[in-house]
Amino acid sequence: MRLAKLQQMMSSLSYQAMLITDPINIRYLSGFSGSAGSLLISAQQRYLITDYRYLEQARLECPDCQIICRDRSVQSLPQCIATLLQHEVISCLQLEYNHISVELFIQLQQELPCTVSASRNLPEQLRAIKDTTELACLRQAAWIGDTALAWLLPQLQVGMTERDAANLLQQKIYALGADELAFPTILLSGARSALPHGKPSLRCFEKGDWILLDFGARVEGYRSDMTRTVILGEASNEQQQFYHTVLTAQQAALAAVKPGITGHQLDQIAQSVLAQSPYAAYVGEGLGHGVGLALHEFPLMRRGCQVPLVADMVVTIEPGLYRPGFGGVRIEDDIVITQHGYELLTHSPRQLQQLPA
Amino acid sequence: MRLAKLQQMMSSLSYQAMLITDPINIRYLSGFSGSAGSLLISAQQRYLITDYRYLEQARLECPDCQIICRDRSVQSLPQCIATLLQHEVISCLQLEYNHISVELFIQLQQELPCTVSASRNLPEQLRAIKDTTELACLRQAAWIGDTALAWLLPQLQVGMTERDAANLLQQKIYALGADELAFPTILLSGARSALPHGKPSLRCFEKGDWILLDFGARVEGYRSDMTRTVILGEASNEQQQFYHTVLTAQQAALAAVKPGITGHQLDQIAQSVLAQSPYAAYVGEGLGHGVGLALHEFPLMRRGCQVPLVADMVVTIEPGLYRPGFGGVRIEDDIVITQHGYELLTHSPRQLQQLPA
Repeated sequence: MRLAKLQQMMSSLSYQAMLITDPINIRYLSGFSGSAGSLLISAQQRYLITDYRYLEQARLECPDCQIICRDRSVQSLPQCIATLLQHEVISCLQLEYNHISVELFIQLQQELPCTVSASRNLPEQLRAIKDTTELACLRQAAWIGDTALAWLLPQLQVGMTERDAANLLQQKIYALGADELAFPTILLSGARSALPHGKPSLRCFEKGDWILLDFGARVEGYRSDMTRTVILGEASNEQQQFYHTVLTAQQAALAAVKPGITGHQLDQIAQSVLAQSPYAAYVGEGLGHGVGLALHEFPLMRRGCQVPLVADMVVTIEPGLYRPGFGGVRIEDDIVITQHGYELLTHSPRQLQQLPA
Repeated sequence: MRLAKLQQMMSSLSYQAMLITDPINIRYLSGFSGSAGSLLISAQQRYLITDYRYLEQARLECPDCQIICRDRSVQSLPQCIATLLQHEVISCLQLEYNHISVELFIQLQQELPCTVSASRNLPEQLRAIKDTTELACLRQAAWIGDTALAWLLPQLQVGMTERDAANLLQQKIYALGADELAFPTILLSGARSALPHGKPSLRCFEKGDWILLDFGARVEGYRSDMTRTVILGEASNEQQQFYHTVLTAQQAALAAVKPGITGHQLDQIAQSVLAQSPYAAYVGEGLGHGVGLALHEFPLMRRGCQVPLVADMVVTIEPGLYRPGFGGVRIEDDIVITQHGYELLTHSPRQLQQLPA
């Protein structure tokens, strides 16, 4: 079904053949979830090229593809492709320029009997709009995140390390049935919360700390991605105002979400709230991103992204303020665009939570 | 120190400047552990180019580099590089062709005022030989693996799912202090053990099952990678013979390890044991790989790999047999090459373990 759609798109662009090398696109299109393989698609043929390590798995996962087991020590990938295409008239092979190494690119240029060219991001366009099965996985992944967080927060206490807390959260995510984490958990405390992508350290929580938790679960490959920032103890006035600024920005962006609006416009709405606050110097870049089989995918939600949102796209909305020495606040939810607005996938409370300390 | 060594190697090859884009090479050379950045090295300069999300982190982690914060919405990476190099005489920028996207490659070709060329794998060559600190991390990562396995095995029982068992193992790995898993755990049972890279499923263990566990821990980024295959219950004669074949192949390869021997030679030794057995049809490809900050790195241990091993290289030795419908056995250890032979980093028993069922 997805492969047929891709072949239609290829036909309308007069693509004769396309080599898919991004593992996530391969999985989306063929079902193959191994980490070594490529997908060769022409108007007539669908080949999943892999090696002996993934042969059994490919046979189970890819009913719609012809499975090709390449002996890597005997045949290069370009040689294999040339053999497979030898009975078709192919003057140009389309490649994923953003997902192919220069090494392989040059090898293909040298060894193929046809030219190569950059394909448009066709699988990415298909992936942006989720079907019912995909939405069910994303809902389940978001539910795991919400549930794990609600379980974790009452256990946080002074003296616990960031890493201890991250381990607890991750255990719960797995116990709730995730295939894997969506990404390595970001769990930062105190002033470290100002590191937008820091890693959990051995720092111990102190009273009055910010605790920023950015995490998610994977269900059948589909990822949730949420962030909450809480206070261990009572928030100072400064902390409350700082938090409230981010929350207001998020609410303003969410209120404007509907089909037709662009990531650029939503980003501007959130940015203008932050820019008009006393914390304009600490504004993070961008508002969010599509999420699905990849953690960051189409459509992006940032300056310059002019793709109008349509129903069944799933994106994150995650404004943030990052003030070195003081701390950072990010509030991030996953939403699915609906016919007239949006539906939240993540449901954890967004008001500032002050944990007993 | 590592950067100075790289600059020496560059000088001896008459490289004027090099752009490092592989995150693992960046981390090894500069200390930067973020996921978005690049390292620009000339004879005189060392720039770590990142964006606001990683600015604080880069300042903390990279004392030997000048940190450049690029606003991605205003300046392209090639523009940034051109500006940084404008006062130096650079006619060619060396790139990592195996770690750069074709998209960025073409952008660099078009926008830089100099030519680009493929660099040799200089950081990878440095990384192959571990220093004392790296060996300590690798030992610790291997210890976590051994300890977690010894804790897990007595808990395996009929009716438990592969995924349950993998979750338990992973919890223990984190609890023992790993930063992260070395890679997503492979835990397969029964005939599924013949999938060399399968994922834990909801299949329940049955009496007499093979259980194959391939897993590891990360400590300060350094990974362990070990595999054990056990029987839940009593092994049949066929299972015993199958297992013993793999163990004999591993022991033959290990017995030959010493400085000067190549991955190709060791692979041949193991392969000849397997090929002369009744199971020659089920032999896996390759014997192992270097392991460190990357799961698979220099030197490789397979046909055609003619790099002589030297002291302080760390590699896996992991022969396997994969028989569809019957099951697979892999036994994998991490070793460090010493002056006269090798030292095991992983110490879990290698004799066939038959668990009470």
